[in-house]
Order: sequence, then C-alpha cells, then structure tokens
Amino acid sequence: MDAFVPGPRLRIAATGSGPLDGLRFAVKDLIDTAGVVTGGGNPDWLATHEPAARHAPCVAALLAAGASVDGRTITDELAYSLEGANDHYGTPANPRWPHALPGGSSSGSASAVASGAVDFALGTDTGGSVRVPAAFCGLWGIRPTHDAVSIDGVLPFAPCFDTVGWFARSGEMLARVADVLLADQAQTPVPARIVRCAEAFAARAANEPDDAARLDERAQRIGATDAIAVFDGDAAGWLHTYQQLQDDAIRASLGAWIAVTSPRFGASIASRFARLATLDDAQVARARARRIDIARHLDALVAGAVIALPTVPRALLDRAAPAAQLDAFYRDALTMDSIAALAGLPQVTVPLADDLDRPLALSLIGPRGSDRALIALARRLSGSASSSIE
Amino acid sequence: MDAFVPGPRLRIAATGSGPLDGLRFAVKDLIDTAGVVTGGGNPDWLATHEPAARHAPCVAALLAAGASVDGRTITDELAYSLEGANDHYGTPANPRWPHALPGGSSSGSASAVASGAVDFALGTDTGGSVRVPAAFCGLWGIRPTHDAVSIDGVLPFAPCFDTVGWFARSGEMLARVADVLLADQAQTPVPARIVRCAEAFAARAANEPDDAARLDERAQRIGATDAIAVFDGDAAGWLHTYQQLQDDAIRASLGAWIAVTSPRFGASIASRFARLATLDDAQVARARARRIDIARHLDALVAGAVIALPTVPRALLDRAAPAAQLDAFYRDALTMDSIAALAGLPQVTVPLADDLDRPLALSLIGPRGSDRALIALARRLSGSASSSIE
Repeated sequence: MDAFVPGPRLRIAATGSGPLDGLRFAVKDLIDTAGVVTGGGNPDWLATHEPAARHAPCVAALLAAGASVDGRTITDELAYSLEGANDHYGTPANPRWPHALPGGSSSGSASAVASGAVDFALGTDTGGSVRVPAAFCGLWGIRPTHDAVSIDGVLPFAPCFDTVGWFARSGEMLARVADVLLADQAQTPVPARIVRCAEAFAARAANEPDDAARLDERAQRIGATDAIAVFDGDAAGWLHTYQQLQDDAIRASLGAWIAVTSPRFGASIASRFARLATLDDAQVARARARRIDIARHLDALVAGAVIALPTVPRALLDRAAPAAQLDAFYRDALTMDSIAALAGLPQVTVPLADDLDRPLALSLIGPRGSDRALIALARRLSGSASSSIE
Repeated sequence: MDAFVPGPRLRIAATGSGPLDGLRFAVKDLIDTAGVVTGGGNPDWLATHEPAARHAPCVAALLAAGASVDGRTITDELAYSLEGANDHYGTPANPRWPHALPGGSSSGSASAVASGAVDFALGTDTGGSVRVPAAFCGLWGIRPTHDAVSIDGVLPFAPCFDTVGWFARSGEMLARVADVLLADQAQTPVPARIVRCAEAFAARAANEPDDAARLDERAQRIGATDAIAVFDGDAAGWLHTYQQLQDDAIRASLGAWIAVTSPRFGASIASRFARLATLDDAQVARARARRIDIARHLDALVAGAVIALPTVPRALLDRAAPAAQLDAFYRDALTMDSIAALAGLPQVTVPLADDLDRPLALSLIGPRGSDRALIALARRLSGSASSSIE
C-alpha cells in the first residue's frame, strides 16, 4: 500500500535556503500544513475540520532551512496504535520486510523514508509512534525531549506525552534535521556511563532469545556492561500509570469531538476509544501522583547513565499476525516506550543491520535536553556496535 | 465588589463523607461544575459555550470528601492578569486591606476566603494567579507541582504551565485540602537546607526595603542563611522565556476562539491578547530550548535546598495604582513566579502577619512532588518565623 494519503501528492516548496537545501521530507497526516485539512487517519475527522491556517512551526522551520514537503503520510487512526494498520486508507508497506507491518502510528512516514521516496519524514510519538515504526522499517528515529519541538499545529492526542519526531536512513541525516529543529538546544553532554535496562532485555528474550542475546552483546560492546532494573520491579505498574494518564489526556483532547460526531473507527481503534468511558478519576489521580515519582526516579537515573534497551519487544509483526500476538506486542511495547514518555526523555533508535532477514533496533535514552548529544553518541556507537546501515 | 459571579450563588451538595465533612468551598469561574457554563471572566466566552457535562475532577474529589460548593468566583478575564481587576464583572474586594486590589487572576476565590464567606477556595495558577492573590489577601496558598492535580475541566490558558491551586486562612486547612487533592502523593521529603533567592529579595528591596529586610530576617530565622543567585544572573532572560512560551500556549488554546468570536476585552487584557499576533516562531523555539535548561538547573537546585523568596515584589497594589506601577508589578511578579512555573515546581505562600497594616508573604519552592511535605515544612516554619495568622 501507498505511504501517502489519497489524492494528489502534497508538495510545498522551501521558503528559505540553509542546511537542508534540496532535501525532501514527508509530513504525517497529524501535522498541519497551511491550506490543507489535517486528516488524522480518520475520514470523519477529515470531513469535520477546516484547512489549517498555517504550517505547524516544525514544518515551517524545515521549509525555512531549505527542505521541501513531498507528501502527507498515512497515520494510524488518530495515532491510537503501534502496528501501522489503517482500516480506512490501507496499511503502508514495510519496504525492507514486505511481509511485516510497518509499525505505527507514524506508519506512512517510516514507509516513505524506508522506500527512499523522501530524505526524511516527520512523525509524532506519544507512546512509541516514531520508535516502533523506525525499528520495524530499519530506520534511525528520534522521540525528542518532551516540549523540545513545538506541538503547535499537531492534532492533540495526549499532549502531556505528545512529541514531534523524525525518521532518517542514516544517523547523519537524523542529526542534520536535529540541527534545525533543535538548533537552540544547549550542548548538554550525555553521561559517559551506559547501562542496560534489564526488564526490557528480558521482555525481548521472552519472545526472541537470539535477538535479545545479539542486542545484549552489542550493548555490552559499546560499554553497557551493567544491567539495572529501570522499572524498579514494577513494569506493570508503570504501564498502568502511563495508560491511565494517556487515556485521560485523550479523553480531554478528543472526547467532545467523539461525542458530537460518533465517528466510524476501525474495530481495534474503536475498542480503545470505548475504554475511555471506563476511566476512573480516582485511579487517574493515583497515576498522576505515581508519574511524578517515576519521572524523578528516571531523571536521577539518566543524570548518571544513558539507558540502552531493545526498541521493541519483537523484531517485527507479520501482516497476518494473530490478535493475541498484536495485543501482547502492544502491551510490551507500550511498557518499554513508557520510560521515555513518563519522564519526557529523548530516545534515539539505531538500526543494527548485521542480520538482513530482520531488523535489530537498539535504543538509547538520555537526560532531558540532551537530544543532539544523544544522537551524536548513537552515531559514534553504531559503528562500534556493528556495521550500521549508513 | 462581590467575590462571586453575577446571579444566584452556586451551591452543590457534597456527594460523599470524609475528611472535609461540613466544609464549604468556592470555585473559580475557570473550573467546570456540571450543568454550569464556565464563564472565564468574559461575557463573550460565557455566551459562546455550553454548560459543562461534568465536574472537573478536582471539584468531584472535594465533593466526594464531604465538602460542598458554595459559590463561583470572579476571575480576571481568561486568567490573563495578576492584579485582580475585571472590567465586566467588577473587581472583588480585598477584605483585609480594602484600599488594595485583591490580586488575580484567582481574585474572587482569594476574596471569598479572606472575607470568611467560605472555608477554602479553588483557583488556578499559571504565572502567579494563586500566589499573588494569596499574598495580597493575607492567605495561605499553593501552586502545586505541575500536573499533580488534574487540569481536566479547567478552561485551557497555557496548559504547559496551568495548575489548580487553593487558598485557605490557615496552614492546617491548606493541608487538609492537600490531603484530598494530593492524596496519592508519595511522602517525598523536602531537603533540610533552605536558601534565599537573592534576586527576588533584591527586587522586593528596590520597591520596599523595609519589607524586604523583614522578610529576609524571617527567612534567616528559619535557617535560610545562604543567599544564592537562582536566576543565574539572567532574570530578564527567564521572564522572556516564560512569556514567549506562555503566549505561544495561549495562542494555541484561545487563538481560534478569538479569531472567530472577536470578543470584547478590557483594555489591559486586549493589549495582552493583541501581543499574541506578534509572536515569532524562531524566538519561541529558542525559549523552548532555554526552558529545558532552566528546568534542569532548578531541579538540581531544589534537590539540595528549598528556595525561600518574597511571594510578590510589592506588598499591595492600591486600587488606584498608576499604570506604570501596575506594569512594573506585572513584570517583576511574573519574573519571580516564573521560577516554579518554568520547572513545574510546587510553591507555598505563607502569610506572616506580624505587621497588620500590610501583608508580608513568604514563599517556599520545593522539588516536584514534594507538595505535602512542603506545606508541612511551611507550617512548622511559620511559627518560628513569626506569629502566623493561624
């Protein structure tokens, strides 16, 4: 399937000249471009909204730096999944592993970059929507520090977790985009120490022990000799905390529109939205308190060490994967993704492509504001960890 | 003037029984109560919105704990000022210092508590809207850790900074409400060390040297012997950072409604909203990067020491204060208020009432999530700092 939304391919010329001269990028259909209706992967959203008055600041900054828009990309419906399927517009291809799903919700953006259709692409990441498709499509990807890139002009999903991220085929291109979108970031260093997230490696090992061993070996080769219990023995509690707060935020962002519009959703998405009605304020309040503790715990941890972990609990999902496998993937991926999300930390995923029948994605999580240093670290390490795809 | 919005006084019975049995509280007209249109201090907002479908979670939690709603209180228009004036509904009284403004934007809530009309009241605090009126009306007040109390059901102003706070006449009552609204907060301790914010004391001294000396003496009496440069020599830069991000968020929250509605605003509010049109994306992007650095700097600081500072740069504003004094107050207050706002930290303000012709408000800022411990600390210290109004 196509990576792009139906209709003529959106093209917007660069508005300036700079470090991205001549590059072409795609924009997830959750991010505004002036004069276009942001569709959010749902036909009823498309039909009930007006064209955007202006470009989202992230798009405007890239255009001003010399890049041009070349396509709007398909998103999972209202960003509410990680698989990369869309019942209305089709499921974008995974160009490198065609039997597999592309991952989502920034499915079309990952697909467009992996196919070579564009040089890089913008996505959004709330609970893994850049990290998962980057891993599945064998790409470099970043979920930046929360609020490091403006989410103005982005369809609000769970703003307390929403970020604008991007995909590239090389670490060099990931960094070039960061130099524009994070131009003002101070050169915060990352800690010299790297540790492995014990629970995330264990979760991967439960599904794919050989991959987990390979990733573990690569992580140790770059100096991550110590493994630590990042979740402090309560990964299920962290997932619950994340889901309660995510769903509470989604209800606030989209609840009124859903009530008024009664939109048609794909089946799996519909059940997730239906769950919003069962939210309990007292449970959400407990999650809110817990999140602050978790964020403090993580801030202290990444002040002393970068965290290395497998980006995903399973290398790929087959396009015909059974529902139980999809459910387990969603649960385990969201758990791993909750680390960066709960504390607003940057996470870079690196494709280690020494084994071409499947991707091998390793992630690094650093302190808030260390995004560019974290990309630089990932680039340095990817060479020593394995031959990268660069 | 009345503290309450025009019309019959809103009364909502408790829905449960608990630690707040029999207490009555007022709700700022920025916070939803079921079946009522949240008016936001502006007649056009009131006219263009529907009644709320449900209580905001903060209201629901208080009702469930045995308290009842007794009145909706006047707010400065759409929360966009700190003085406590409202051109449409009038300026609530400052019950203890009738010649003075009540402070805002949670003006009516502070006024209602100070007059004894209710036991406590809910307000909101983005850039000082609980802290300033608490100081002006001689009350205890708290701006909690950002996102510690849900802002669901609160009219969005600048959500990245918006908090729900409250006012009380005693530290004991402030703590009782915290035990309900922050019931799930872990008992995070505050650091034993307390330091004074040098720039904030200097700003107060520039206006009122005797008050500054008194506050300084009280702060030292509770152990804050060291003064440090919290703003790191760049208070103006912090204010700029805060205002850029606040205004960017306000534009995202309210810009579309303003464009469609062309609401009538009071003169000073209109000029603030007009400024939104001049925002420059590149400047906002720089502010976004700076904020992350500032927050990290502050997190590290409050991990080692509670920060003590005057709550306001001037004890009171006369109801007939000249425009230049109002402007200077707004600038200096917002600068002091930006500390807690930029890093999402809790701040408790304590009335030190040893001098009855004017209030003397001292603030304590602690680590994220330490709200209840910070209130406990403030209660312990208020006795040793001076005879409190308890």
